[in-house]
Amino acid sequence: MNLVLLSGGSGKRLWPLSNDVRSKQFLKLLTDENGQRQSMVQRVFSQIEEVCPDSNIVVATSESQADPLRNQLGQGVELVLEPERRDTFPAIALACAYLESKKQLSRDEVVVVMPVDPYTELGFFRTFADMEKAVQSDCAELVLMGIRPAFASPKYGYMTYECDGDSFLTPSVPRKVTGFVEKPEPERAEKLIEEGAVWNSGVFAFRLGYVLDLVRAELPFDNYDELRRNYGKLTRTSFDYKVVEHAKSIAAVFFDGKWKDLGTWTTISDEMAAPALGNVIMDGCSGSFAVNDLGIPMVIIGVDNIVAAASHDGILISSIAASPRVKDHANEIAARPMQEEKRWGEYSVVDTAEYSDGMRSITKHMVINKGQAISYQMHSKRDELWSVTDGEGLLCIDGAYRIMRRGDSVTIARGSRHAVRALTKLHLIEVQLGSDLDESDIERFDFEMPYSAEGLQCE
Amino acid sequence: MNLVLLSGGSGKRLWPLSNDVRSKQFLKLLTDENGQRQSMVQRVFSQIEEVCPDSNIVVATSESQADPLRNQLGQGVELVLEPERRDTFPAIALACAYLESKKQLSRDEVVVVMPVDPYTELGFFRTFADMEKAVQSDCAELVLMGIRPAFASPKYGYMTYECDGDSFLTPSVPRKVTGFVEKPEPERAEKLIEEGAVWNSGVFAFRLGYVLDLVRAELPFDNYDELRRNYGKLTRTSFDYKVVEHAKSIAAVFFDGKWKDLGTWTTISDEMAAPALGNVIMDGCSGSFAVNDLGIPMVIIGVDNIVAAASHDGILISSIAASPRVKDHANEIAARPMQEEKRWGEYSVVDTAEYSDGMRSITKHMVINKGQAISYQMHSKRDELWSVTDGEGLLCIDGAYRIMRRGDSVTIARGSRHAVRALTKLHLIEVQLGSDLDESDIERFDFEMPYSAEGLQCE
Repeated sequence: MNLVLLSGGSGKRLWPLSNDVRSKQFLKLLTDENGQRQSMVQRVFSQIEEVCPDSNIVVATSESQADPLRNQLGQGVELVLEPERRDTFPAIALACAYLESKKQLSRDEVVVVMPVDPYTELGFFRTFADMEKAVQSDCAELVLMGIRPAFASPKYGYMTYECDGDSFLTPSVPRKVTGFVEKPEPERAEKLIEEGAVWNSGVFAFRLGYVLDLVRAELPFDNYDELRRNYGKLTRTSFDYKVVEHAKSIAAVFFDGKWKDLGTWTTISDEMAAPALGNVIMDGCSGSFAVNDLGIPMVIIGVDNIVAAASHDGILISSIAASPRVKDHANEIAARPMQEEKRWGEYSVVDTAEYSDGMRSITKHMVINKGQAISYQMHSKRDELWSVTDGEGLLCIDGAYRIMRRGDSVTIARGSRHAVRALTKLHLIEVQLGSDLDESDIERFDFEMPYSAEGLQCE
Repeated sequence: MNLVLLSGGSGKRLWPLSNDVRSKQFLKLLTDENGQRQSMVQRVFSQIEEVCPDSNIVVATSESQADPLRNQLGQGVELVLEPERRDTFPAIALACAYLESKKQLSRDEVVVVMPVDPYTELGFFRTFADMEKAVQSDCAELVLMGIRPAFASPKYGYMTYECDGDSFLTPSVPRKVTGFVEKPEPERAEKLIEEGAVWNSGVFAFRLGYVLDLVRAELPFDNYDELRRNYGKLTRTSFDYKVVEHAKSIAAVFFDGKWKDLGTWTTISDEMAAPALGNVIMDGCSGSFAVNDLGIPMVIIGVDNIVAAASHDGILISSIAASPRVKDHANEIAARPMQEEKRWGEYSVVDTAEYSDGMRSITKHMVINKGQAISYQMHSKRDELWSVTDGEGLLCIDGAYRIMRRGDSVTIARGSRHAVRALTKLHLIEVQLGSDLDESDIERFDFEMPYSAEGLQCE
């Protein structure tokens, strides 16, 4: 099976846990069978691994999600990185070009495309085989997955299909799709369900050649690298609009099980393994839940039906019913992300200050995972003072190597090129100093940091 | 006028803002006429300054409150420090001995003793003159202040007094007190108020000699220093029990105005100048209030009648009605204080971590006020790494001086003696490293840090 997972989105509907760089799929709000906190994307990957162990999996995503994806799924995860964000049609087009050029798939191979973060059961992934079979049997150009609706949601898309008296309950039999209704009013949704309509899961299956032809009709290209260079020329449009709406024949197979989008505090509240994650004491609260990602305790007393969430980005206290309004406020708070997962590890901003002369300081606790490196880079507007609190690292400043260990201080003046390789898991307290502390003040240099100090002359 | 202010208490009824070292009187929850945040003790001092500008004022308190008192009221505030906490009778005894020995007051001088933190109006302090006059007229050994009750509180003490048909409304006329009722049941309180009883404000006036004789009857002493040395021998009992209950004659004068104890979130909610202090966004909340002392934003949406408070110690979210329960939970959370006011300035703990080998780190943002110094000291179980983020300081490590400025790193290894004087307001990020990070790991040395680098040989 060939799977393309779309990992997009960024957003503030789950602020303060989600932010511009930390999309909802990376939040560890679920728990795995060992009781470990698990993100939505980790859950989906473990489910795919169980149901379709021998699949070709690529994740189509943007540069900004590369680090958290590698960090959560392992360095081996195969990513197709969009040079810029341009909606789902260009993203799927690029992934298909990748499958053709880099994975050498033939035009006839079936590709299944899915969002990276549905909250669902194993049966959902088993349905992929039915979709693949339906495409192979040429019953339609495009095969979708319908979900038996659990309730008349006005937030999902619906599909109607040809039903010759047969019931929904033979899910593996493909049906001809007759229409789509996006986000109907509640009464309309009720009616659709009565008439047997299903939710559109956003999973598509097709032959690779089918989509590649559509892409080439818009923008001819020889191979993946060429398409990637010209990525900005692809229409900024959705796969639904560009492909689904114009397909000559569409069929659907069906899944009858739990499936939802955990995109808001309201939906997440039902699926959290415990009413509280992190350091939380709850006393006499009914229907409330809390996530505390700060190191300090949170005490909640006698408050019903609220969500409380704390991260280095901020603190949210909201009635569950009113929680969708968080998005508007999060957008008002135009702050830099205070906690970020990186390919090399993660950091939290633990302190910020501004001084009377306009200078500022930002203090971060950084964790660099064993073997990982911060690439050779330079800042022109800030000095950095590092205090190593745990582990051992190999440091390179302007070409000179040294080992740094717990208890060491390192000063990196603005204009110095520097890189660090964690020889063991490395913890640093970094103090940034400057009048203009901006994550974009970084110049990267092409230089592979050695994996050990062996053979190097260290100061 | 001679005023003794009792500054005691520590407690967790206002957790996470109050803690073992930060008593409620130091919390800046009020605002002064310029809109600046003001603590209860600052408010009381400014009121005393306005009403009784030429008073002798001493504050009887414990060592642990010396730093916040000096920091909030100025270095000149006169403190009588109890060598250990032993209740109000020993504290007042020591203050009286101080007034006799150090201020050379005669036995006949009138002393007014009051708690450091009533939330009241200027008229309250004007009543002191009536109390003084009443003592001078020898109408009683002890003169108290009665407050016209605003409601039938079951939490206050009540006094009854001789009332010869005259009304309460000539407050400056002293009355003979006939009895006390502590914390009556609500119905009893209603009845007391009908009968004309008043709240006992906890303010006492007496001639200095009267109380000194009582103290000497229990423990003879020549002077303040001797009493201080033998402080542990004084009975651990309250002034009410030891003095008031045994007085031959007690009179009261009266104050008819606003007076309350802002000791719980419930009482504070009414007096806060704004429903939100700090970085707080409130959307559709009725009857709720919030205090955010963290640097990150707090967003509250659609939650009524709650208190939300955040500090480096923790986060509280509670219905106002259930908020008294916070005390129990705060006691469960046996954490070190994460934010503390010191004589020299203040610090916040911004990060704590524990590593796989049992080592720990604590990161603090420290602010040392201009001219202030951290005394010559040594830690035997921790190293400290300082990053200077603002200002200029004179540092002394093991006898060697150096100037430190923004951008400098300083390593203070365990066993090093060190002191610092802030030449301008100084900000440091301090990283402590050790397996046992305990505030008590400190040895202080007698050494006056110079006020400038003039004439010193600096490295």
